[in-house]
Amino acid sequence: MSASSLRDACAIVGVANTAYTRGTEQSTLQLHLEASVGALADAGIAPSEVDAVMPHDLGDRCAEEFMVNLGLTDLTFSSTMHTGGASFGSAVQSACLAVAAGIANVVLIPFGRRGFSEQRVSTSTAKMMPALYSIQEFEKPYGSLVGVQWFAQAAQRHMYEYGTTSEQFGQVAVACRKHANLNPNAVMYSRPMTLEDHQASKMISSPLRMFDCSLESDGAGAVVITSAARARDCAKPPVYISGLGEGHGNPPTSITQKREMTFIEGLHSAGQRAYAMAGVTPADIDCAQLYDGFTWFVLGALEALGFCGKGESGPFVERGCIELGGELPVNTHGGLLSEGHVSGINHAIEAVRQLRREVEPARQVEHCETVLVSNEGDMHEGSVLILHR
Amino acid sequence: MSASSLRDACAIVGVANTAYTRGTEQSTLQLHLEASVGALADAGIAPSEVDAVMPHDLGDRCAEEFMVNLGLTDLTFSSTMHTGGASFGSAVQSACLAVAAGIANVVLIPFGRRGFSEQRVSTSTAKMMPALYSIQEFEKPYGSLVGVQWFAQAAQRHMYEYGTTSEQFGQVAVACRKHANLNPNAVMYSRPMTLEDHQASKMISSPLRMFDCSLESDGAGAVVITSAARARDCAKPPVYISGLGEGHGNPPTSITQKREMTFIEGLHSAGQRAYAMAGVTPADIDCAQLYDGFTWFVLGALEALGFCGKGESGPFVERGCIELGGELPVNTHGGLLSEGHVSGINHAIEAVRQLRREVEPARQVEHCETVLVSNEGDMHEGSVLILHR
Repeated sequence: MSASSLRDACAIVGVANTAYTRGTEQSTLQLHLEASVGALADAGIAPSEVDAVMPHDLGDRCAEEFMVNLGLTDLTFSSTMHTGGASFGSAVQSACLAVAAGIANVVLIPFGRRGFSEQRVSTSTAKMMPALYSIQEFEKPYGSLVGVQWFAQAAQRHMYEYGTTSEQFGQVAVACRKHANLNPNAVMYSRPMTLEDHQASKMISSPLRMFDCSLESDGAGAVVITSAARARDCAKPPVYISGLGEGHGNPPTSITQKREMTFIEGLHSAGQRAYAMAGVTPADIDCAQLYDGFTWFVLGALEALGFCGKGESGPFVERGCIELGGELPVNTHGGLLSEGHVSGINHAIEAVRQLRREVEPARQVEHCETVLVSNEGDMHEGSVLILHR
Repeated sequence: MSASSLRDACAIVGVANTAYTRGTEQSTLQLHLEASVGALADAGIAPSEVDAVMPHDLGDRCAEEFMVNLGLTDLTFSSTMHTGGASFGSAVQSACLAVAAGIANVVLIPFGRRGFSEQRVSTSTAKMMPALYSIQEFEKPYGSLVGVQWFAQAAQRHMYEYGTTSEQFGQVAVACRKHANLNPNAVMYSRPMTLEDHQASKMISSPLRMFDCSLESDGAGAVVITSAARARDCAKPPVYISGLGEGHGNPPTSITQKREMTFIEGLHSAGQRAYAMAGVTPADIDCAQLYDGFTWFVLGALEALGFCGKGESGPFVERGCIELGGELPVNTHGGLLSEGHVSGINHAIEAVRQLRREVEPARQVEHCETVLVSNEGDMHEGSVLILHR
């Protein structure tokens, strides 16, 4: 069978999220359950119909917790992704495989963590991804311990090779903040930021400043996936999963050891797979929700996914292309940079709401029919979803 | 699409294992790689053709390590199971989904751990399964900390309800040991054990004695899965995956909190799914490789999978049915009880070798056409594979 048989075979029928905050009394499980109950209600599907749960590795959850708390009687499918920031898209891939083959009927995917109250990267209590073991020999001994240090080197290299500027990185942060200010659920709602603010923010790892880094925040989201046939009977119009793909890049090491430091090969491969499955090109994408652990990720993704040429992402964002009203609105919710760091599930939730016309009018993308969602991990492995209404 | 379309869509084309030992100088990664290289050679497939790796949770591995060490250039699929002892069968389920849908071509599944040199259950250094979080409130406070304590209660209950005897548990251990003595790779090769030895062995948690418990051992195995079409061009005859299923039971808590303590509901559901997919019944199974973390698991599995009636597993094993030459030879390699604890991948490897006629003649099951493999986790969640030649 060809992967193209998965095109539109499944749909996202329910989405929900908790508040995104900096500080919470709720446990990670509580956050996951709140989002799960919300997503099932959004779909109009009773919990008893759920027969697959895909627990979130970084959230440190297991399927049985959802069974006990939601009253599920059995599961036919459960698996977990260990690809860091790329996990969400890969989880959707597995969910679609299970549903399309008739192994599962309704798949629940809860994602999220206490990224402020518990797993703060800045205080080194964050869980180490298994994928990072490969840096132990070559980078840790030199003090390169956390993501911002690795990606700073890629960003620096992009500046060297293509003349990209710190201001251009800043344009990504400013665009996300602008969109967050149209989204009351964003952590940074009503906290505007200018390019000058970005330039004045603390240097973390040159050239990446404080405002080039995503938020440490608490919160969870959940997504419900079922077959296209079942989706037609849900509470809201289905959002079809037209294309999906996963990719890892070569070698699958940290970014500094890649053949080409500024080319996010894993995401590129994932994108090619998703475009081929969906039968679309970058020109067909009405808006993109791009994983933005750091501003550099957005520049890198714009190039890897073919929205602009190699080395051209700096001028592309400087022209305002990624802002609402631009050529390709990006992260219309504010992204990890300004809405909240929910391991990228919030990008898919926003995509669904854009396609359903459920977002605040000021940030609704006009004629939004097809949305690309990218997720990206610490090794620059990637996963891509193409959703359409 | 119906799950039955997966019947025979994929095949196991390569298997290999390291030595199984009590004590090793090799790291877990080295063990996994040795088995992986062996399984690919067994299949006659070049590592460069592998496009999916499913890392083993308990082995604490990640896909990127296999990419770097085997020279893989990209992956389209990777996921991990968090269902403890049930993980292997569920990993095969996901592998088949990816292959059948055309997402992946060749899937590598390496499993195994340093269960003696590092993760010894008896010294409490074993990694705690996420699935066990649910016992924290109700069992841990009373000192019920490890598997043998939970399963002892189920075994005790089976004795109370059905008149099962300690000697009948012992017959399972003796059968496995007898088979291990025909298998030079078994940890317990050339170490015979009688029922009297079993009865004289130390009581661990009543009624389970030392010889009712599986081994603490080091080692790894690997399995290579591809499509039926690709399988026809491999080095050895394909072993088709005719049926598979996963199940969790209700409630999905530790065994002592089940509605019925002696009924392994998750495994039963998994078995029903696998039988339905394969279009076979228990009567069609020529031999069974049943996950045997404790002797109780085998009795429980014989009933849950329909090889004998409820409560009848004690007399069934006492009649010698599960020994080579019996009605249903079980664990012809020696199982976790006497070959080695390799998280159950060794059961599938044995099944493949039985179907290929590759085992030592003395333990070859005659007319072996269809083999059932069961895996089972600490919550009695289960996965079942039905393999045929």
